[in-house]
Amino acid sequence: MANSFFVNRRELEFLLFEHLKIQDLASTERYADFGREDYSMMADEAIRFCTEVVAPLNEDADRIGATFKDGEVISPPGFKAAYKATAENGWMAASQKPDHGGMGLPGVMGAFVQEMFLGACTAFQLNMGLTTGAGHLVESFGTDAQKALFVERMYSGKWAGTMVLTEPGAGSDLARIRTTATPTDTEGTYLIQGNKCFITAGDHDLAENIIHLVLAVMPDGRPGTRSLGLFIVPKVRVDADGTLGESNDIRCTGIEHKMGIHGSPTCSLSFGDQGACEGFLLGTEPFQGMRMMFQMMNEARIMTGMQGVALSSVAYENAKRYAVDRLQGTDISKTKTGGHEPAPIIRHADVRRMLLLQKSHVEGMRALAYNAAYVADQSDTATDADAKEVFEDRLALLTPIVKAFCTDQGFLMCSEAIQVFGGYGYCGEYPVEQSARDARIAPLYEGTNFIQAADLLGRKLPRNGGAGFQALMAEITQFVEANSEIEELKATAEMVGKARDAVLGAVGTLMQSTGAGDFEFPMSVATRFLHMLGELFCGWHLGEQARLAYDALKAGASGDDVVFYEGKIITARFFAMNVLPGVRMKSAIIRSQDTSAIDMPEAAF
Amino acid sequence: MANSFFVNRRELEFLLFEHLKIQDLASTERYADFGREDYSMMADEAIRFCTEVVAPLNEDADRIGATFKDGEVISPPGFKAAYKATAENGWMAASQKPDHGGMGLPGVMGAFVQEMFLGACTAFQLNMGLTTGAGHLVESFGTDAQKALFVERMYSGKWAGTMVLTEPGAGSDLARIRTTATPTDTEGTYLIQGNKCFITAGDHDLAENIIHLVLAVMPDGRPGTRSLGLFIVPKVRVDADGTLGESNDIRCTGIEHKMGIHGSPTCSLSFGDQGACEGFLLGTEPFQGMRMMFQMMNEARIMTGMQGVALSSVAYENAKRYAVDRLQGTDISKTKTGGHEPAPIIRHADVRRMLLLQKSHVEGMRALAYNAAYVADQSDTATDADAKEVFEDRLALLTPIVKAFCTDQGFLMCSEAIQVFGGYGYCGEYPVEQSARDARIAPLYEGTNFIQAADLLGRKLPRNGGAGFQALMAEITQFVEANSEIEELKATAEMVGKARDAVLGAVGTLMQSTGAGDFEFPMSVATRFLHMLGELFCGWHLGEQARLAYDALKAGASGDDVVFYEGKIITARFFAMNVLPGVRMKSAIIRSQDTSAIDMPEAAF
Repeated sequence: MANSFFVNRRELEFLLFEHLKIQDLASTERYADFGREDYSMMADEAIRFCTEVVAPLNEDADRIGATFKDGEVISPPGFKAAYKATAENGWMAASQKPDHGGMGLPGVMGAFVQEMFLGACTAFQLNMGLTTGAGHLVESFGTDAQKALFVERMYSGKWAGTMVLTEPGAGSDLARIRTTATPTDTEGTYLIQGNKCFITAGDHDLAENIIHLVLAVMPDGRPGTRSLGLFIVPKVRVDADGTLGESNDIRCTGIEHKMGIHGSPTCSLSFGDQGACEGFLLGTEPFQGMRMMFQMMNEARIMTGMQGVALSSVAYENAKRYAVDRLQGTDISKTKTGGHEPAPIIRHADVRRMLLLQKSHVEGMRALAYNAAYVADQSDTATDADAKEVFEDRLALLTPIVKAFCTDQGFLMCSEAIQVFGGYGYCGEYPVEQSARDARIAPLYEGTNFIQAADLLGRKLPRNGGAGFQALMAEITQFVEANSEIEELKATAEMVGKARDAVLGAVGTLMQSTGAGDFEFPMSVATRFLHMLGELFCGWHLGEQARLAYDALKAGASGDDVVFYEGKIITARFFAMNVLPGVRMKSAIIRSQDTSAIDMPEAAF
Repeated sequence: MANSFFVNRRELEFLLFEHLKIQDLASTERYADFGREDYSMMADEAIRFCTEVVAPLNEDADRIGATFKDGEVISPPGFKAAYKATAENGWMAASQKPDHGGMGLPGVMGAFVQEMFLGACTAFQLNMGLTTGAGHLVESFGTDAQKALFVERMYSGKWAGTMVLTEPGAGSDLARIRTTATPTDTEGTYLIQGNKCFITAGDHDLAENIIHLVLAVMPDGRPGTRSLGLFIVPKVRVDADGTLGESNDIRCTGIEHKMGIHGSPTCSLSFGDQGACEGFLLGTEPFQGMRMMFQMMNEARIMTGMQGVALSSVAYENAKRYAVDRLQGTDISKTKTGGHEPAPIIRHADVRRMLLLQKSHVEGMRALAYNAAYVADQSDTATDADAKEVFEDRLALLTPIVKAFCTDQGFLMCSEAIQVFGGYGYCGEYPVEQSARDARIAPLYEGTNFIQAADLLGRKLPRNGGAGFQALMAEITQFVEANSEIEELKATAEMVGKARDAVLGAVGTLMQSTGAGDFEFPMSVATRFLHMLGELFCGWHLGEQARLAYDALKAGASGDDVVFYEGKIITARFFAMNVLPGVRMKSAIIRSQDTSAIDMPEAAF
């Protein structure tokens, strides 16, 4: 398989510098040293590295995968060298503060780097992505000694990191965790005992140590998740100066045989079989496990959404190239005039429909996900408490939507890319079937997409009196009003407006239900509601981009930019006319308050 | 992996004997000897055989798959013995006439047998399914000598069969076929030369010979597909008495590495490298290749639709069982009263929504596909020419819908089943990820789903002045009128009626376009239009089933039947309230006549 990692450089630049305008961060103290050129250079460097070092791993990552032999996980060919190069080049901690060796880029550029790595080889990125997240947890909540010992070693890739939550009986429901942490005579040191499963990169041969962050039940806690502490549990014991000691009694008992991401070992881990697994309470307060883990989960959720963006983007770029090259059938618009030569399939209306469906979703979802990452930067750098709160509310609301919407649609768009290839799309000769398989995990892990929908409806929507939601609706209304008189944009603006009204209608129905104490009906439509918001936000962002394109054309854009901007206007209209009607449909379904799924007798399924 | 082939026996019985009432075929001469008990016994026998012999092949079919070594295709473990047992038990030709060794069952029971085999192990069924179709082609169009030589040997599985159309440069567009048939001195005998690809079961070790039915260009024909003849091309040459001779200069040059159906070798074949590949014109007339192949393609299209039904059905049955067994979270409807015990996930509203989405699709699609097969029986056995025409029109209209709708939705429903399992759904430990991978081929082969949509819109809808379409609409109207006053059914009837109106509205817009000579816009929405009809027909069939259930309850149904019939009524309502609104949405999109996808400059994609 030839190189199949393709990036639309112009689109990324447009999003970062024309739409989000991340160069404006230069006005903050933290990012005062960075300008557009710096970001642009970084972006080029990330693309180059991913093209040359990461993308070539992708085929073997799938065909050979990570393997498990004699209790050891063996990474796919090339992973070790690429991991080393990735760490040395600092990509492991692109958006972490320089204090412990991070590159110090804003989070939105970190999201960009994630997208490139995920698009080049998802399985490889997963082996490194959680290391950063785990390191960041220690940086955020650890004692000074813990920070000094672990953070830089993790950001530099010397030691890897993981996130260890799930147990065979406790998937979505962490209140059922049974792994225990028993205090020893040394304060802060516990003995960990229990079985964990579905641990991404839970064991591998890429780093000299693996630092597990493990949720475990502490004694004398209140029932449920409030009994959980978060523990630093190294695979190999370490001295205070970082010297490696003996093994810490953690055993990898197997890896899963999966549909995709074969290069990323999904491990079952057994902690403390011999009663000799030491863990260190992160920080000093007991029972704070869930609170701390949520920080990492939120970062991981945005990253998971990015997986949907990255894979569907690469699949689209491949489908587009194939559609330009592949000759099949004749151009229907020319048969009238006698043209019967074979036409590239991009001339066929249905292929164009499939491609534009992909393109509009990819660009809408990318805008949505990068926006969320940028909101986190705006929140981090806000100097005013009120402004910070606005950004925090927004990020809280967007996080489950980015995770669930971008992963559900990311998978479907990969499947649509397969369809563009015809039978070839099903074959390993082309990369899109792997993209689809690799993308299918994302709606399942880091909290299933229903967990996201329940979080959105139960917590994020009503958070702070609905402030985050209302602020977004107000901005959308502004967009609609500002563009409804412009010929090229008014159809788009009108459909965004209708979708907004449909969302508000559904919210009304849902509030009525919950007000009456009925939580079951809202939960039965929560997934649908999340998708409504995802579609509305994508349609709105695409509309904003269309407006920027319109302004740029008016201002005399030239060269290749003309067709790029024209495409932006058409892409937004396509999404508005062909996808946003789905928001109204879903609203009508929710408002009809059908309870069939709840009424169905269990024996009748 | 434990046995995962599960069948809802009651549902199948309901469809065959209460909904379709196939026992009524006893009034025809051809099926006078069969009654409900015979069919029921056959069904049990098929289920038993598939459970005991076929289903156990499925895991190795995927994990080991068919392999290619030294020019030979090696079938997965167990395939040979199962193939022999299948042939000996007569399943290869369940619905073929007894003249050449068929079981003589009606086509609808053949569809049932197909569903069982496809559900038990799709890759295995593909190795046998095309044999029947190829044998049937020879039976339909061959000379007496050809029939005597080939048909029974194929129906008995002694010799396998294939369908050889595609070439590297000619996928959907058969006018570009380059394989040639050059006449020899012996009348009817040609030398075949060319390369073919994507040949399902194009080579294997299951039968002593493989009879290829090959489309090839005959000399002196008109351009395009009208130059094609269909040729019988045996892998091993045969004498008139069936004695095997030398090899016929056909070489398998490789098999595809695919996303799924690993047990079914997808072959590239080279015909006549040495100039010594003999083929025999099927029948005696030249240039009839496309016409003849269409018979087989139409049968194959219904079978392909059945693949979507079978795989999504098995995936649903597995998801349902998992949802009953798996404990996670608490029952939200009981938390108010203090119930905090772990609940099976089937208690959660979102899981119920996913399950009912699958169930309603599976049962709606099954009704649609079996109906089509039954219409073929009705057409075959009609003694009145007018009645026959009605059935033929209907079958013509339904075929592309069964193929495309059931395969698109079949894949999506397998993906939904994965979601019910959470992270486990992504793992090979459970069967659903394989179902999804195996199902993804079906929208691509036997004519991509767009080809089906174009066929529907361009040929089948206007066929015979739209008679087939109008007759179906009239029946749907009757259904709506007959059920709109019954409390339990009126919501369903109302939504079916609205969906019908939406379809009629879209047809109006499309006829306007084509009337004005614009075929590009209709082609850009053809896929969407096909889905509208698929959803409408499923909703209608589910509604009919709900009415039958309602009547049965009124008539005093008892025991397990009560909950079964109640479930039928709720399932229809769920589909009507949650899926049929999509018909209206798609109609609105079509009626808005958005041409963004057509307008998009190629360079802007």
